[in-house]
Amino acid sequence: MPPKEYMNFAPLQITKSIRSFLEGALAEDIGCGDITTLLTIDAPKRSEAVIKAKQDMLLAGAALAVEVFRIGDGETEIVFGFSEGATVREGEVIAKLQGSTSALLSCERVALNILQQLSGIATLTNKYVEAVNGLPVKILDTRKIMPGIRSMAKYAVRAGGGFNHRSGLYDGMLVKDNHIAACGGIKRAVQRIRKSAPHLLKVEVEVKSMTELHEALAAGADVIMLDNMGVNAMKEAVDIVSGRVPLEASGNVNLENVRSIAETGVNMISVGALTHSASAVDISMRIGS
Amino acid sequence: MPPKEYMNFAPLQITKSIRSFLEGALAEDIGCGDITTLLTIDAPKRSEAVIKAKQDMLLAGAALAVEVFRIGDGETEIVFGFSEGATVREGEVIAKLQGSTSALLSCERVALNILQQLSGIATLTNKYVEAVNGLPVKILDTRKIMPGIRSMAKYAVRAGGGFNHRSGLYDGMLVKDNHIAACGGIKRAVQRIRKSAPHLLKVEVEVKSMTELHEALAAGADVIMLDNMGVNAMKEAVDIVSGRVPLEASGNVNLENVRSIAETGVNMISVGALTHSASAVDISMRIGS
Amino acid sequence: MPPKEYMNFAPLQITKSIRSFLEGALAEDIGCGDITTLLTIDAPKRSEAVIKAKQDMLLAGAALAVEVFRIGDGETEIVFGFSEGATVREGEVIAKLQGSTSALLSCERVALNILQQLSGIATLTNKYVEAVNGLPVKILDTRKIMPGIRSMAKYAVRAGGGFNHRSGLYDGMLVKDNHIAACGGIKRAVQRIRKSAPHLLKVEVEVKSMTELHEALAAGADVIMLDNMGVNAMKEAVDIVSGRVPLEASGNVNLENVRSIAETGVNMISVGALTHSASAVDISMRIGS
Amino acid sequence: MPPKEYMNFAPLQITKSIRSFLEGALAEDIGCGDITTLLTIDAPKRSEAVIKAKQDMLLAGAALAVEVFRIGDGETEIVFGFSEGATVREGEVIAKLQGSTSALLSCERVALNILQQLSGIATLTNKYVEAVNGLPVKILDTRKIMPGIRSMAKYAVRAGGGFNHRSGLYDGMLVKDNHIAACGGIKRAVQRIRKSAPHLLKVEVEVKSMTELHEALAAGADVIMLDNMGVNAMKEAVDIVSGRVPLEASGNVNLENVRSIAETGVNMISVGALTHSASAVDISMRIGS
Amino acid sequence: MPPKEYMNFAPLQITKSIRSFLEGALAEDIGCGDITTLLTIDAPKRSEAVIKAKQDMLLAGAALAVEVFRIGDGETEIVFGFSEGATVREGEVIAKLQGSTSALLSCERVALNILQQLSGIATLTNKYVEAVNGLPVKILDTRKIMPGIRSMAKYAVRAGGGFNHRSGLYDGMLVKDNHIAACGGIKRAVQRIRKSAPHLLKVEVEVKSMTELHEALAAGADVIMLDNMGVNAMKEAVDIVSGRVPLEASGNVNLENVRSIAETGVNMISVGALTHSASAVDISMRIGS
Amino acid sequence: MPPKEYMNFAPLQITKSIRSFLEGALAEDIGCGDITTLLTIDAPKRSEAVIKAKQDMLLAGAALAVEVFRIGDGETEIVFGFSEGATVREGEVIAKLQGSTSALLSCERVALNILQQLSGIATLTNKYVEAVNGLPVKILDTRKIMPGIRSMAKYAVRAGGGFNHRSGLYDGMLVKDNHIAACGGIKRAVQRIRKSAPHLLKVEVEVKSMTELHEALAAGADVIMLDNMGVNAMKEAVDIVSGRVPLEASGNVNLENVRSIAETGVNMISVGALTHSASAVDISMRIGS
Repeated sequence: MPPKEYMNFAPLQITKSIRSFLEGALAEDIGCGDITTLLTIDAPKRSEAVIKAKQDMLLAGAALAVEVFRIGDGETEIVFGFSEGATVREGEVIAKLQGSTSALLSCERVALNILQQLSGIATLTNKYVEAVNGLPVKILDTRKIMPGIRSMAKYAVRAGGGFNHRSGLYDGMLVKDNHIAACGGIKRAVQRIRKSAPHLLKVEVEVKSMTELHEALAAGADVIMLDNMGVNAMKEAVDIVSGRVPLEASGNVNLENVRSIAETGVNMISVGALTHSASAVDISMRIGS
Repeated sequence: MPPKEYMNFAPLQITKSIRSFLEGALAEDIGCGDITTLLTIDAPKRSEAVIKAKQDMLLAGAALAVEVFRIGDGETEIVFGFSEGATVREGEVIAKLQGSTSALLSCERVALNILQQLSGIATLTNKYVEAVNGLPVKILDTRKIMPGIRSMAKYAVRAGGGFNHRSGLYDGMLVKDNHIAACGGIKRAVQRIRKSAPHLLKVEVEVKSMTELHEALAAGADVIMLDNMGVNAMKEAVDIVSGRVPLEASGNVNLENVRSIAETGVNMISVGALTHSASAVDISMRIGS
Repeated sequence: MPPKEYMNFAPLQITKSIRSFLEGALAEDIGCGDITTLLTIDAPKRSEAVIKAKQDMLLAGAALAVEVFRIGDGETEIVFGFSEGATVREGEVIAKLQGSTSALLSCERVALNILQQLSGIATLTNKYVEAVNGLPVKILDTRKIMPGIRSMAKYAVRAGGGFNHRSGLYDGMLVKDNHIAACGGIKRAVQRIRKSAPHLLKVEVEVKSMTELHEALAAGADVIMLDNMGVNAMKEAVDIVSGRVPLEASGNVNLENVRSIAETGVNMISVGALTHSASAVDISMRIGS
Repeated sequence: MPPKEYMNFAPLQITKSIRSFLEGALAEDIGCGDITTLLTIDAPKRSEAVIKAKQDMLLAGAALAVEVFRIGDGETEIVFGFSEGATVREGEVIAKLQGSTSALLSCERVALNILQQLSGIATLTNKYVEAVNGLPVKILDTRKIMPGIRSMAKYAVRAGGGFNHRSGLYDGMLVKDNHIAACGGIKRAVQRIRKSAPHLLKVEVEVKSMTELHEALAAGADVIMLDNMGVNAMKEAVDIVSGRVPLEASGNVNLENVRSIAETGVNMISVGALTHSASAVDISMRIGS
Repeated sequence: MPPKEYMNFAPLQITKSIRSFLEGALAEDIGCGDITTLLTIDAPKRSEAVIKAKQDMLLAGAALAVEVFRIGDGETEIVFGFSEGATVREGEVIAKLQGSTSALLSCERVALNILQQLSGIATLTNKYVEAVNGLPVKILDTRKIMPGIRSMAKYAVRAGGGFNHRSGLYDGMLVKDNHIAACGGIKRAVQRIRKSAPHLLKVEVEVKSMTELHEALAAGADVIMLDNMGVNAMKEAVDIVSGRVPLEASGNVNLENVRSIAETGVNMISVGALTHSASAVDISMRIGS
Repeated sequence: MPPKEYMNFAPLQITKSIRSFLEGALAEDIGCGDITTLLTIDAPKRSEAVIKAKQDMLLAGAALAVEVFRIGDGETEIVFGFSEGATVREGEVIAKLQGSTSALLSCERVALNILQQLSGIATLTNKYVEAVNGLPVKILDTRKIMPGIRSMAKYAVRAGGGFNHRSGLYDGMLVKDNHIAACGGIKRAVQRIRKSAPHLLKVEVEVKSMTELHEALAAGADVIMLDNMGVNAMKEAVDIVSGRVPLEASGNVNLENVRSIAETGVNMISVGALTHSASAVDISMRIGS
């Protein structure tokens, strides 16, 4: 369960939940049997294979691919030639495999689907990270992720040089406009939270205006999110706060505007696209003899 | 379990597996508790809410959103104003909700994540379908989908006007280069399959050259996939086959080249991007009083 | 996961679902503990054992028995002396085991229950196959199987020389009388399917009369099932179709009439009894010192 | 969960495990979708249907069929016209249904598979019970049952007038030859059990000879099983024991010899065939308009 | 899923995980059937019942008991006469029930087991809370809880007036001696965490001496835990820190010493006994006619 | 699955259900990741550790701790220095471990939580056993146990020298006052049970008075439970029964009165506190370099 190799970002812990996901992934693809393989490949046949990058990319998810083949067939050997988060160039061999031909064929698509999607997230994240290069700002993910893969997607963000916002509704308090309205104002919402919340969790408050920003500061928010503000408004907010609490910019961030947002002086920029709109990178597996 | 409304494409059957997925989706987000909501919202409070499109889009996944709120709180009412596959314009209200404020807040993100991702797939699919408008060709999906959501993603392709390739390795036989190599040629692979395969499944053979095309035809393939061929090669293949079996074009298809591929006369074009690289559409939920 | 030995029929893929079935099988029998064994056997004691046929039979399910002991106790060694589908005579030793006495005793009944039931299906199937020996017809199974064991039961049919009809409602289209009635006729049903169905699945239509047979042919059915027809009607149907599509005979087939049905010239005969009424064969395990 | 109607034998408790079995049963058959139904039936269409006996039979499993349709579609109404364990004649209507046509079609096979198999067990059990009519003996089942359905199969035995042996290895102690050998004799095995066993469980000892019978009596067995003895040996055993403990006859029992075994005076006769070799009864469902 | 009634502490969210726990709880007790009830109670019989306190206690877990009976039998009505966290005196009726006699009997023990254990935790917690009455200190729980019931046990602590430490290893960072040793000192550990940790989680550092306390302050710990210090050392620590960060006292806290610990001026006192050593309170259910 | 070492009481069978419990235990604590460890410990680092008793105690649950580390990290070695049920003195090393530092830290709390709770049950049980030392009476557990851990808790009772009452509602018949009332008297209840019950299960009847005692004897109860009787009443009951059936004393038993209850001559004394109110023993893990 603990990560097997050292990385300069928090590794992915292969939990029961991830193992179940991978088992389910193979079940989803294989169903009652990989009929083409069962009918064309002699069961004892063994082969070698390579996984290759068909475009420039950052790698993420190798440990998951290893686990897929381990679940599918305990005897497949797979060796990755790159570290997590490393840049791989088009045409380079990402990994070499050896094992039962049937197992290689039955597990191929699942392993590739995971690698190409997580590497896609890492690759896109890195573009945002590069775009703000040199500025004291962190690129954050959000909870906008197709269900089922959150901890993996958030890991891929880390592999790409980004940082994680909270994992779910349980490990951080984020008071949004809906909470504020329903609770009767920022002050009251923060007070209720302060009274009962676990002492290791911070309170972030989403604000839409300078008025709300002042309220949030007065209420004692630990972090403030500037929701969908323009660059000028963000600058004003940075001035008002002047370092008392960290500021997160959120909403309508893209590769074109991310640097100008960063230049406002906010501490963090969260980008939903990292996890909900990253294209898969192109990776293929070729089985040799 | 059976679909509740009529559509001009096969509806999504809400199976045990999908119900488990949705339960797992809420568990993934809520974990041991939506702490912000638990601490700021009085449990008996009830609210209304709307889900709005923030861009032009095709809708897909309404039944899943309904199910999410049903799992989260049996008493939330949700009414969609558009049919599945319908076009929704920026700013239009997609659905109206009414129920426990806590439940609305705790389920919001999961419901939106599913809607925005499936609608994204439907929307992208429809762009491909429009691009080949008027030509006798079907746009197909592939198995290149992040695990866990396959039947939902394939449904979204149908909602966008596309068609489904096989669901997995179990409901269709597709002899690829790796099978051919390991088995000793197209002829032998098809023969082995013909001898034992269930009689309701067809055999598709992937070919990379005219030589292989002739072999596949001679071996009695039911369908032939032209893998990564150029437009001229595809035209030649169409001429050779001249309608004896359906032809599927596959590999490196994009919105720029899809029409010229379609004009070669192939019967189907499969596009991995539909499911592995569709951007989420922008949808939000706003809770009223 | 892939099969470990070569066979002249498609092997059983030991999927997650089958592994769960076997774990559940042990849980069902052992519950909170095999109390007789826990109280009478010293935990470190090890024994040898043999599994013997107590009647003539065809063997099916060896890989599952191996897996049962592997789940129950990772250290039990078990070696089968016969291949799957092989004939075993009364009194012959089917397999030899060696391992923890407790594990052998706690797993015995589950392993035997599976072996005796699957071998029973293979043995009965083979009687049907022998009964039509020399005729160009395939013996097929149906979906009439007690839930939970379908892929295993269908594998046992293959081991006995039979062939599989579709695995479920998802991997083949079979238009039955109820569909025809509800849809408004054979023609309309087949048209609706043709318009949307995945291109690797065939359409089979069930017919009860020559009128329906002509309709099915005209509608373009890929396969036609003759439901509960007498031998003369079947012959007439064979003449009418004269090879344009394969014909499946279905309904009230037994060992007495199967050959005369086969002699009508139908291509396939499906037999529910293979899986819903096969007697278990008699197999026992004896533990030595 | 508790049984809904009174019966003169212990009803089937619909536990979590049975509900999971039924959900799994539908998942096994429907997979990613009942494609024929999805493509031919308009979702809002509703129909009536009847389930009919196509042979004389005893009914068992109605509550499970009800549950199958409840899981598949909460709105299907189903009314059974016979009580559990009642005799149904060929041609009689067992149940009437009303609901979504799609749901009826998608759930039909699963519901019928369960009804036909459990009714088959009840019907066969009743033949054994009738065969010993008037004699003071109980017909018992065994643990020889295909995994996954044990509590349902044992219920069907009760519905047929039989009695249940232990449910598994956890709710009764049965010292068999293998335990005796490994433990060092009947006396020592029974002593070890007596010392530690829960006080509500009895100890049954399997014996193969009069010598072992005497040992078992001396050791204080609560019940003794006569394993594979001939009728004369059983009579001798009955004389020796002369009512001190109940005697169970086991091994090679069939409908031909069961009455003569009963006439030896044994108290119970266990019959593996009840659950491992009962033929399914023939039941069908017809959907009306 | 959202809580149904207002409370002055965070309610328990009935998540999928809790629902599974309750289903498993009934399965654990009922197994293949509540045989005494099945054999003695006519299925249609209905009864009323009361749950009574047999000692003074604080109530916790009512919503779970309601859910147990809902899972066991959808038709049982249960009304609680006290709010969560309320004091109940010996002999008072906690709840009134009405429903199927069988269901009441089959679910009784599970519902009571949960109520008596959670109320036991709330009752014990409240004794600690009362013991520090008037002092500005919070009583905290720990992660020392038998697995499977953590979110419920932590809820019971809240119902008793206590506060929750982190829920698990995922929603708060607590650097303990082992981390410090393995990482090379407090400074380095906190630096590594600061560099990468999600921005809504605080860092608590466990210290055993004034030296470590100074290191933790210098490293920028958000919270400091005084591990197993004596009262004098704690006072010294409070003086040193003088309000810069909150201080948590931990280790060997009991009802005798908790007030003197509180009087040192620490902000929080964590007590393992709340969840690992609380006695169950005595509650019984009596079924009327 | 079978126990690995000999003990003079029935070992704990590590069933699927227990393995799932342990996997769930780690999932409950680790959630989406042990963030402190992931951020402070280099993944490849390995350490040694010891588990120590911090008070005198009886050990129970070693096999479960071994399994926890096996699930968490296949490569952790753990060696226990004491047998199950053995007395460990304060300060003694219970077990030595060696493995990945990350895995040791991530699994520590779960392993300790189980060990400290089960050892707590064994330790408390043993106090009751010692209190009746020399008298011919057995100390029994009950079903009053927090759900999820029953088979483990009952094992800990055995490890402490106690005996197990039935495991659940399925492996023994216990007719309580509620059954008697609902069924119409002791006689009728026992008759209904006798008519249908599995022959390896005994019938225990709970009585509250000498009148009921006589009824239970007359009805043929196998065992009689004296519910909440005083010592004098128990003596009278022992005289009345005079050895015809075993007697179990139940209700309000504690360490002060257990010996006087035993001296009445009852055969068994059941004690709910063993499992619902045992304090955890104090155990800690220390990681070395």
